[in-house]
Parts: sequence; structure tokens; C-alpha cells
Amino acid sequence: MRTEAGDLRWGQVKLRVRYQETDQMGVVYHANYLNWFEIGRTEWIRSLGIRYHDMEQRGLLLPVIDLSTSYRQPAYYDDIVRVFTRLVKVSALRVEFEVMVCRFKEDELSYDCWVAEPEGEVLATGSTRHVWMDTDWNPVRIDRKAPELYERIGGK
Amino acid sequence: MRTEAGDLRWGQVKLRVRYQETDQMGVVYHANYLNWFEIGRTEWIRSLGIRYHDMEQRGLLLPVIDLSTSYRQPAYYDDIVRVFTRLVKVSALRVEFEVMVCRFKEDELSYDCWVAEPEGEVLATGSTRHVWMDTDWNPVRIDRKAPELYERIGGK
Amino acid sequence: MRTEAGDLRWGQVKLRVRYQETDQMGVVYHANYLNWFEIGRTEWIRSLGIRYHDMEQRGLLLPVIDLSTSYRQPAYYDDIVRVFTRLVKVSALRVEFEVMVCRFKEDELSYDCWVAEPEGEVLATGSTRHVWMDTDWNPVRIDRKAPELYERIGGK
Amino acid sequence: MRTEAGDLRWGQVKLRVRYQETDQMGVVYHANYLNWFEIGRTEWIRSLGIRYHDMEQRGLLLPVIDLSTSYRQPAYYDDIVRVFTRLVKVSALRVEFEVMVCRFKEDELSYDCWVAEPEGEVLATGSTRHVWMDTDWNPVRIDRKAPELYERIGGK
Repeated sequence: MRTEAGDLRWGQVKLRVRYQETDQMGVVYHANYLNWFEIGRTEWIRSLGIRYHDMEQRGLLLPVIDLSTSYRQPAYYDDIVRVFTRLVKVSALRVEFEVMVCRFKEDELSYDCWVAEPEGEVLATGSTRHVWMDTDWNPVRIDRKAPELYERIGGK
Repeated sequence: MRTEAGDLRWGQVKLRVRYQETDQMGVVYHANYLNWFEIGRTEWIRSLGIRYHDMEQRGLLLPVIDLSTSYRQPAYYDDIVRVFTRLVKVSALRVEFEVMVCRFKEDELSYDCWVAEPEGEVLATGSTRHVWMDTDWNPVRIDRKAPELYERIGGK
Repeated sequence: MRTEAGDLRWGQVKLRVRYQETDQMGVVYHANYLNWFEIGRTEWIRSLGIRYHDMEQRGLLLPVIDLSTSYRQPAYYDDIVRVFTRLVKVSALRVEFEVMVCRFKEDELSYDCWVAEPEGEVLATGSTRHVWMDTDWNPVRIDRKAPELYERIGGK
Repeated sequence: MRTEAGDLRWGQVKLRVRYQETDQMGVVYHANYLNWFEIGRTEWIRSLGIRYHDMEQRGLLLPVIDLSTSYRQPAYYDDIVRVFTRLVKVSALRVEFEVMVCRFKEDELSYDCWVAEPEGEVLATGSTRHVWMDTDWNPVRIDRKAPELYERIGGK
């Protein structure tokens, strides 16, 4: 399965860890990685020229139905992390994303673009599965409701 | 100014501090008190027999336009706190709430009801001002749009 | 594997959905279920007579290393939900919890105690795996560092 | 009162509104502005060559003791906002920051540097007051504990 943007390449976005994201263990609270995954998806889709916000305003929702995460190393306040995101499955009804969160040093080069492999120190990995829904939370076939979007993300 | 529930009495609600609410200083992150203030308002209005959720579904929003908070003592994970809330001003266009967050010991008596004075160890005080809005974010005169609600909260 | 509290029984805790927990889809943002899972674990362990806060102050951390969640139905603002939690695996190095989040009607009976089966409308299910760590984030054998705790939660 | 960086000039940082920051009114939940204020302070101080994270690791905390905020226009998901921050008072015991959150259009020029006046559409304004504390939460005189820091932020 391929997207127009390439062959299962990873999109990426850079974040700096916020104070509010830490907890009293002195590390990022584990639930906050899910927000980062969401930001990764938002930027991944923007890289294809689609604004998730516009999709929603056209009545197309993409809620999470399943997710899994593995935590390898804690993230700390003020760390620079990159969220690497790629689409690993797409059908008329569902999509699945794979995600990696990696830490970078302050002065490392980094570009908000597509890469073949994530770099940096891996902090967490995850995957999220989603269904297309309308605003009444009914499932939607994306190949019918938004065929151009379907094609853009690599459906055929 | 009086509400049906009494003479400027305070409503209250009990919360236990969540792990997620702490930050790396080992205390509750300061922004989280605003969530507690919101819970205080929700329960204050429920005590009058009104469900804020129903108000919203009828198209009546009550966003915050100004707020202030003073922090006196930090709150810690697993603390038991009570949010004391009272309405101090009401007009056809605006309302203003006063809030106090107080810590209680595990075994202290406590009731979810109206009190004349907050008790416990004061952690934070605050106030929030709100305007009535419709779902298009236009100001609304509550005495016209929902006169029974206006009366219930002490407007005349 | 059994806990003192019974035979794989579920502990439970009741929550009311906070406004802050919703997102612009009008439902609870999916990451917030992880906070609820955490609250479920905190209350589960309290039901055994152990305060998680005390464990931490004795230098014993229990960070999440893996988690998975499935979302079945959205939760809404002001809903009453119960988080059902049980320990499904315990060793000297790791523990695993299973969680169910269920919606209840306002007037349904409910007790904060142990049950054989979760009730209510299932909104989400999940599991979390944890390792015992010291405050330097080194793995710890709980049977040596805190044998009475190990026994209490059902290790042998 | 002047800082080395100039004459009460504003530092700034650019953020994109996260999905998680919205609530069911379809706008950014009001408490989240306080996180943005915090990010503004972190970047303001970094612009002076000081990393707040390092300050904390040296045992110097700067908790919020008072804050006020006024909300003028709602912020929406995916908006680009800039947080403008300036130090308006500094003493050996306390500091006070002023903050403005402004919305920018996608294609507007913007630089992460010092400006004489905030630009963009004003969404919220605020101020926060802080005290210097040690890690035991005792007040600290910054002119004695960290004189070079005191001088750098404009104390004399």
C-alpha cells in the first residue's frame, strides 16, 4: 500500500515538551503521548495537502477505535521530540497509523518532511486505528463520500 | 443579591487529586484549578435543579470572559479537596462566581450541600465572570431567552 | 492468580465526565480514558489498603510500559461512568491490569466495591502493563523491596 | 524597568492549536491558555539565554501565585497563535509577566524574536505573578541565590 507521498514514508513534526505535560514522576505523563500521536496525524495529513479541520467541517470524522502504545524511555520537560507518523492500512472504512516518538538534541538537524526511517532516540511507539464517521457517528464509506480524499491517502 | 438556594451561600463538591493533575514540581499544575472551578460551577447549578448540559443543548452557552486566581498552598496527588462556589453577581447579560478550593483530611466529615462559610485549608481562591451566549457566540439576554432560569439563579 | 480481595474480582470507582475532558467532536477526548485508567488503578490498590502515594514516597514507582485501548461508544459531558479495574498478572518485576469503562444512568445503584463482573454500558476496554522501578528508574524486584506489598496484591 | 533584551519588549512564540485543547463548545478550553502562558514564559527566558529547566535543576522554582486572564475571542483547532510575553515587574522576591495571545493567518510573516508591540488578532490577555522558591517551597532572595540570573532579567 502506497500513498502519493511515497512508499510508506514517515511524515514528521517537531515538538518541545511542555511543563504541563510532566507529572510528579518528573517525566511526561503517559497519556500525553496520545495527544502527540494526534498532532502527528494532523501534520501527516497536512503534508498531503489536506487540512483535517476542513475534513471535519465537511462532516467527516475520524475517531480512534483502537490504540496501543509502548513506552521505552521517559520524555522530560523541554526535550525536543519528533513524532514520526505513517499510514500503514487504508480501506474505504478504516485507516491505521503507526507512530514513533523520538528525542533529538537541541542542535541536531531536522526537517519537517518525509523520511524513510525515523531517527533519534526512540521514546515510544504506537499505532492507532480509526473509522470514518459522519457527524451523527454513523460509519461512512470514504470512497463514496470523499473519493478524492480516498485517492490522495492511497486508497485505490 | 440572593439565590433561591439561600443568601449567597456556597455550594460545594468533593474531588480527589488525580495523578495526571500533578507536574514535575510534585504539586497540582496551576491551570488545573480552572477545571476544578468549572466542576464547582457545574455542581453549583445542579444543586439548583439545573443541568448545565441541558442548558447547552438548549443553545445557551456560558463562556468565561475574565478570571483571576490566587494560589496559597500547593495541592498534592491524592489530596481530598472541596471546591466551594457561590454566585456573587447576576444580571440579564452576565454572571460572576467566587470560588475557594480547600483541602480536607481523609476522615473529616463533609457534605455535598450548601454552607455559609468554606472550611478546610484554603489552597486557592478565584473568581470567574461569564456572559450568556447563543451557539453562534452572540450575547443573549437571559431574562428573555430563559426567564425561569434567570429567576432560579436569583435574577429579578 | 488471586488477590486477597478475591478471585480476579474487579474494583470500581465512579466518575462524572468533566467539561474539560470533552473535545470539539462533542465527546470525551480519547487520551482522557488513560487518566481514568490511572484513577481506576489508584482506587483498586487503595481498596487493598495500600495508598499508591505512599508507595511512591517510599521510592517505588510503577510506570506504564505498554497499553492498549478499544473505544466502543463515546462518553459525553456530565455522564456518570465507572472504571472497573482488575489485576490480571503479577510477578516480582511486572503487573498487568485490565480495565473497563462503563456508563451508568444517574439513578442506577452503584457501590464502590468489588464485583465479579462489570455492569453498565461498555464504553471502552483496555489493559496496561507496568514495571516496578526505583526513583532512578531502575527495575526493582518487588518481592525483595516490598514483600508485604507483593503478597498483598497476590504474588506468592 | 528594563531587561537586557531591551525596553520592556515582548518575546514571542508560535503555537498551533491542538485538537486536545478544544472542548465541546468547539473552541479552546479556557484553562489551556494558562499552559500557553507558561510556554510563553519558558521561551521568553530562553531568549535571554537561560533555560528554565536548568533553573529548576539548580533548585530554583518559580510557581504562579496570582493570575488573571481576559478572553476576547475564542481560539479554534488548528489556528496559529503567538504568545507574546514580557516581564513587567522584577524584585529580589517576585516577578510579574504580562501576556497576550494573538491569532495569525497561516501565511503571515512571523519571527520568534523581540517586538515592541504584539500583532495579530488579540484572543486573550493576562498577567501572572510569581515568587522565587527553593525545592522545599521556601521563599528565596534571587539577588543572593542567583545574582547573575537576577541581573540578566533586569534586576539591579
